[in-house]
Amino acid sequence: MTRVDRWQLPDGVEEVLPAQALIVEGLRRRLLDLYHSWGYRLVIPPLMEFTESLLIGLGRDLDLLTFRMTDQLSGRTLGVRADITPQVARIDAHSLAEVGVTRLCYAGSILHTRPKSLMASRSPIQLGAELYGDSSLAADVEIIRLMLATLDSAGLQDVTLDLGHVGVYEAVLAAAELDQEQEATVFDALQRKSRPDLALALAGSPAAVVELITGLLDLHGDENVLARARQQYQQRAPAALAAVTALEQTAAAIRRQRPQLGIYFDLAELRGYHYHTGMVFAAYVPGHGQALANGGRYDDVGKVFGRARPATGFATDLKALTTLLPLAQTDRGAISLPPSEDPALLVRVEQLRAAGEVVIHSLAGKHDPRCNRQLVEQQGEWLLQPLESD
Amino acid sequence: MTRVDRWQLPDGVEEVLPAQALIVEGLRRRLLDLYHSWGYRLVIPPLMEFTESLLIGLGRDLDLLTFRMTDQLSGRTLGVRADITPQVARIDAHSLAEVGVTRLCYAGSILHTRPKSLMASRSPIQLGAELYGDSSLAADVEIIRLMLATLDSAGLQDVTLDLGHVGVYEAVLAAAELDQEQEATVFDALQRKSRPDLALALAGSPAAVVELITGLLDLHGDENVLARARQQYQQRAPAALAAVTALEQTAAAIRRQRPQLGIYFDLAELRGYHYHTGMVFAAYVPGHGQALANGGRYDDVGKVFGRARPATGFATDLKALTTLLPLAQTDRGAISLPPSEDPALLVRVEQLRAAGEVVIHSLAGKHDPRCNRQLVEQQGEWLLQPLESD
Repeated sequence: MTRVDRWQLPDGVEEVLPAQALIVEGLRRRLLDLYHSWGYRLVIPPLMEFTESLLIGLGRDLDLLTFRMTDQLSGRTLGVRADITPQVARIDAHSLAEVGVTRLCYAGSILHTRPKSLMASRSPIQLGAELYGDSSLAADVEIIRLMLATLDSAGLQDVTLDLGHVGVYEAVLAAAELDQEQEATVFDALQRKSRPDLALALAGSPAAVVELITGLLDLHGDENVLARARQQYQQRAPAALAAVTALEQTAAAIRRQRPQLGIYFDLAELRGYHYHTGMVFAAYVPGHGQALANGGRYDDVGKVFGRARPATGFATDLKALTTLLPLAQTDRGAISLPPSEDPALLVRVEQLRAAGEVVIHSLAGKHDPRCNRQLVEQQGEWLLQPLESD
Repeated sequence: MTRVDRWQLPDGVEEVLPAQALIVEGLRRRLLDLYHSWGYRLVIPPLMEFTESLLIGLGRDLDLLTFRMTDQLSGRTLGVRADITPQVARIDAHSLAEVGVTRLCYAGSILHTRPKSLMASRSPIQLGAELYGDSSLAADVEIIRLMLATLDSAGLQDVTLDLGHVGVYEAVLAAAELDQEQEATVFDALQRKSRPDLALALAGSPAAVVELITGLLDLHGDENVLARARQQYQQRAPAALAAVTALEQTAAAIRRQRPQLGIYFDLAELRGYHYHTGMVFAAYVPGHGQALANGGRYDDVGKVFGRARPATGFATDLKALTTLLPLAQTDRGAISLPPSEDPALLVRVEQLRAAGEVVIHSLAGKHDPRCNRQLVEQQGEWLLQPLESD
């Protein structure tokens, strides 16, 4: 590597410069304050753990996304977290081990070996909230509402909510009685919503099974989807109906507070199926293909830490969120501080800074370009005066 | 690894649970607000970069502290940052490339392959400020003042400031005319302040050289150290005198604002010598062996990114700082929210949350244990009432 390109960042790895960093930090604070006001307590899990703790059966995806290193102290394998949710599950199950409901939130950097999608970052700032100890729909509804409040706080408009439920797929799969290998290829094809691959995966299966599973691909859209699903599976996979009812009730609860919200159902949505155990949800805005926030129910994830707990939660990428926000700032400029050690000046500066003003030393007799005012002494008093720009 | 110890964290890697996390987050905000009010703009460098960018000749220490991974996209070696300063230097030199003075600050997690000292964390949250583009003592004084203001903000008392200057060592070394290999062993012995090792490293050298270098070990203490250094090196290493004068002037400038501050000089202090090029400083409190914050001048670090710039800055570990702070909180408790969808209730809840109250849904008919008040309907109005604890 020559001297000139040392400044290059790896693909999918970005730095945040001052104008944007101000927005990221502001939104970070607003969101953590929001979660606090809903009763979610902040935790700060470490950046790395043993891979045995980070990869707790939450699917092979996470495994492949995780950077591994050797621990020089123990010789064991360390991972840089690719997701904070498993860490928070460990904290709930083991470190806190509370009885009843535990609400936690977090904000921190994660790393991915490869971008999760074409345009995704490999170094997102993940921010999210998790609710443990309650398996009711009311908990899912609370989490979905908090996810929507998150996008409100970010100032995003025209949000659409996507709802799915892995219970539908599970019921259909159980009814189809596929073998394990076929199940894996079917899952893969469904996850990519690829009709040709699905046909290939089901080649040789009875027509009824093909119809049953392929039908999932058409079950997306508005409320009518739920009625169609009920009809389609009433006889052949009745276990799916409980999931359909749950979706109906959840949508109704969300609508009561947001009658205008666009809700989109997708019963073939399997994102994180090996991770999620019930409702799954995501939020979108027009013109942005990636979900801005997503989550779902993932009961029993704490079992590997000795304590199975119902769990539901969501996460968002703070950097991705802020790229959608305007950079414009209401900046009142800064105050230039002359090189004087007058105690009266120092008192004045401390007051101005405490009142939210930015006061910048003029080094080498030069004002910082952000300064539009300066402190000037007149008869023993330090006064603010406008500063002409050069 | 059996199921029961999946919750174990690696040695020197810690998580922060809610009570402590509240303090960490509060202090993080106070400090970033402080730096903002002094004109330091926040940047958010990424968690990983190519090692060629992270390890820009800032000494072998940093090299050994850095975790390395292979980038699946480029095949090149990535490092998880073990220090944020080189990243900020890259941002100043290349990404911003401003003319004149640039002030930047940052807060983020870093990882170390091994603890830097016996009790140190391997996953600190580094927080710091850097000033580029000014080589004067006034810049060093500003940075030292900001470092001391940082400890004030954290509420720490009885802070001591340690001051050193690598110019003294450089001048002495130049006068001693050692070969490169001997220089390395002398540096190593001095850094560990080991008198026997230093004697060994200097075995065979002329008595005058031994005396010249060993003398450094006795040059620590109050202001008298500076007078002694002047005497000791006036003839034999006159280049050291400029550094002594710089220390004198810096101490005087700091004392003007903090006449009570304990200042300790240490002319053998070489921490980060291969990194620093001038003044070095650190802040201590009684009963805590590690420096709570430290920094120094490191001119020309941006050269590898195509732009040499004068630079001075300091850093602290947010987690280490907060372990010294009391956990006590002025907590006014939370408000329990009944499972009602009354629009009037929702409006009331939003107002309470916006006013800083924590309002928590009572799932499954149970109040969260933090709740000391509840919302109760009386004649169509939602009133706050005290909640008896069970």
